[in-house]
Amino acid sequence: MNYQIIRNIIGKIMILLAMLMFLPLIVCVIYQEELINYVAFLIPIGLLLIIGVLFNLKKATNKKMLAREGFIIVGVSWLVMSLFGCLPFIISGVLTNPFDAFFEISSGFSTTGATVMGALNTPTPEQALEMSHSVMFWRSFAHWIGGMGVLVFILMIIPESDEGSAVHILRAESPGPQVGRLVTKMKASSRILYLIYVVLTLLLTVILWIGPDMNLYESLIYAFGTAGTGGFGIASNSVAAYSAYSQYVIAIFMIVFGVNFTIYYLILIGNVKEVLKNDEFKWYLCIIFVSVLLVFISTINIYNNIEETFRHSFFQVASIISTSGFTTANYIKWPTLALMVIFILMLIGSCAGSTAGGMKCSRIVILAKSTIKKIKLMINPRKVETIKIDGKPITDDMVFSVNSFMSVYIIVLLLGALVISFDSIANNSFETCLTLSLSCISNVGPGFGFSFNTCGDLNNFTKFYLSLQMICGRLELFPLIILFSPKTWRIKRI
Amino acid sequence: MNYQIIRNIIGKIMILLAMLMFLPLIVCVIYQEELINYVAFLIPIGLLLIIGVLFNLKKATNKKMLAREGFIIVGVSWLVMSLFGCLPFIISGVLTNPFDAFFEISSGFSTTGATVMGALNTPTPEQALEMSHSVMFWRSFAHWIGGMGVLVFILMIIPESDEGSAVHILRAESPGPQVGRLVTKMKASSRILYLIYVVLTLLLTVILWIGPDMNLYESLIYAFGTAGTGGFGIASNSVAAYSAYSQYVIAIFMIVFGVNFTIYYLILIGNVKEVLKNDEFKWYLCIIFVSVLLVFISTINIYNNIEETFRHSFFQVASIISTSGFTTANYIKWPTLALMVIFILMLIGSCAGSTAGGMKCSRIVILAKSTIKKIKLMINPRKVETIKIDGKPITDDMVFSVNSFMSVYIIVLLLGALVISFDSIANNSFETCLTLSLSCISNVGPGFGFSFNTCGDLNNFTKFYLSLQMICGRLELFPLIILFSPKTWRIKRI
Repeated sequence: MNYQIIRNIIGKIMILLAMLMFLPLIVCVIYQEELINYVAFLIPIGLLLIIGVLFNLKKATNKKMLAREGFIIVGVSWLVMSLFGCLPFIISGVLTNPFDAFFEISSGFSTTGATVMGALNTPTPEQALEMSHSVMFWRSFAHWIGGMGVLVFILMIIPESDEGSAVHILRAESPGPQVGRLVTKMKASSRILYLIYVVLTLLLTVILWIGPDMNLYESLIYAFGTAGTGGFGIASNSVAAYSAYSQYVIAIFMIVFGVNFTIYYLILIGNVKEVLKNDEFKWYLCIIFVSVLLVFISTINIYNNIEETFRHSFFQVASIISTSGFTTANYIKWPTLALMVIFILMLIGSCAGSTAGGMKCSRIVILAKSTIKKIKLMINPRKVETIKIDGKPITDDMVFSVNSFMSVYIIVLLLGALVISFDSIANNSFETCLTLSLSCISNVGPGFGFSFNTCGDLNNFTKFYLSLQMICGRLELFPLIILFSPKTWRIKRI
Repeated sequence: MNYQIIRNIIGKIMILLAMLMFLPLIVCVIYQEELINYVAFLIPIGLLLIIGVLFNLKKATNKKMLAREGFIIVGVSWLVMSLFGCLPFIISGVLTNPFDAFFEISSGFSTTGATVMGALNTPTPEQALEMSHSVMFWRSFAHWIGGMGVLVFILMIIPESDEGSAVHILRAESPGPQVGRLVTKMKASSRILYLIYVVLTLLLTVILWIGPDMNLYESLIYAFGTAGTGGFGIASNSVAAYSAYSQYVIAIFMIVFGVNFTIYYLILIGNVKEVLKNDEFKWYLCIIFVSVLLVFISTINIYNNIEETFRHSFFQVASIISTSGFTTANYIKWPTLALMVIFILMLIGSCAGSTAGGMKCSRIVILAKSTIKKIKLMINPRKVETIKIDGKPITDDMVFSVNSFMSVYIIVLLLGALVISFDSIANNSFETCLTLSLSCISNVGPGFGFSFNTCGDLNNFTKFYLSLQMICGRLELFPLIILFSPKTWRIKRI
């Protein structure tokens, strides 16, 4: 294990995190908040900078990294981010229980959006604005940071990592079964992706701001939640309190941020032909269309008019498939058909290479195609057929990898549900345990059978376990599993 | 496609089914039932014999079968069995709706035990005995027939199929990822398995009969339900009305029938060393032990004393892991932890080569071992390791096959849940839809969130769909999927 390079890169992440924390400090200044709020950010900034610099005093002589180092760097980084990222909540007094704070920021970075802040989420946006702006800003900003990932960002700006090593980190942090490169140089690819991310977020902020009911602060909060497909809001009824305009805008942008960003790059360079060949994109749109239709049919008798029914159906499907978790309606009370569609969407999630969670559409496409291939082979064993994605054949290794990913996903999901069901304090129903576990692993946020604020009622162990499960889901299972695997630490230092 | 051999074998199945139907006729005679009950069995017997003989008039000249023929023979046979097997229900007037009758017998043959007979299942065994004995006997006997499978039986007694071809049928009908042979000759293996099955069933019948509360008829009914791991009883509260003696006996035998029958053969020939090497058997016992412990802890405050708590925990775990579905307690009201354990057991099921359903422990073992291997490979890509089951290495093909089986299982499960959620008549909850679908695919019987008699409230389409899903689960997915796949019928006749 190359501990030196691990230490170096984690140090850099800490310095980056410290710099990102200056943004909520600016919010402090603008809203002239109390002194404690400044301290809440300055203490972690100081700690992060000191440790970060210390970790970089001795530069690694050997810059070689293998897959193992990639997974460990990613796993440790995300834990470190959550550990320091939760300090502002504790110091400012917004959350006094450290487990609550850790849960909240893990939910933020992993773009889940499950919250323990039941009491703090005040019923109207106006009341919410009275709260600590800086801390709430940090909470939502975490979505934005976590959405695109931090390590890829680090790789983009630091010179030391060579391409060959960096790809291991990229693989470990980026969602999806494959890491596609837009251009030959990986760093250039990352730069383009971040640029698209920033531009789309700014665009969304402006569109929300010019709408009838959001000020700049609210626009930013909801833009962060939408761009990172996270789902933190500042009102306990999520987006329900806002106008139909804001709801439609957020719904459309949730779908936009669930698309593989490569698609936007292809559109930018005018390669529409390649976009139309993209299987995942087509399936993503088809799944959305069918789901909206089913939910619409299911809820047709609940709302006053067609527009309202359509809006709630469209918004909820967009919110769940993009694993954001915003809500405009109390969908938990919807008919079972709608709930079943939502449950399946929670499992599927959006596209690879987006900011969303879940199993990813591309994996579903590969699963579906490989299943069909398997059946064809059973019918006619002599027929050799290759599975094609986007018109290109994919290897058996990839198919196997996707199948075993699904198996591990289901195992982690059921294990999580079992852990939650141990929690007798919350007295959760079977439905709650299962959907909350799925919600955490897929980074959605809300589940069924309970109001979406009750994560605060869980006991500390469950909160901690689910915090890890959310990060585990965001990193697509393996970095955290490998980090906690005893095997990893039995290998001699290289 | 070799239609001639398909026709021949299906014809033989029909003749066999006709002969099996003479058994309930004997019950008719013993209990001196009304004339209509005789007719109810004589009509299908006549039809089956005529068609069966017609199908065998012209013998196949080409006896060659491929995997495709194997799947189709198995798929069609099970559908034909259900189609004719449901006639006694309809003709006798026990069930007037043909969809009800088809559901009931599919549930019987597939050893599921889900029932539409809500009203008929009378509260006490004494009242149940007043009902048509022959039809209820046939219903439970179907479990016994379906438990071990019929095609393997056919192969055992008919001379025409050569070993090479017969293995395809065996593969398609037998549960589990591998088809193990006890002795070199497959037919001899099958004969041993059937012998063990018959002897164990007779033993159970006698033990129940000498108990305090069952007459011969009841003993047979519950022995069939236990041996086939089906779950049909004759009282609406299943086994709750019987003594602790009967409950313990049934619980132990449910576990016995969930074991791979090869184990008993090995014990018979004195090869205990091989038994101790069997990974699946060890995992099966471990899973039972842990599950009983968890359920016991979870329900400790519900019952009056330790014995009762243990008995209900033990019985329910045995019933669910063996996918029988008998109940002694209204476990639906148990705490969430117990429900979650039951839910996971419903997915796992028992051992390959038993009469039980579910994904099978051996697949879980392979999944677990391949996941660990995958993680090890990620940590150290240069390390080559083979997965061993029972001390023998297994191929990558097998691992892939198991992983993709799990994927298809989950897909069929969710699809079924979606279909049930369309059923607005029953107004099922999310919990009901999901667990009922799992219950059908894993051949368990009851689900959560509804009383286990309400399958009768489903609409006809859902009943029909679930009937197919139960058979699909019993045959481990592929025979029915292949039968209904358009690809199968696009291939030219060989």
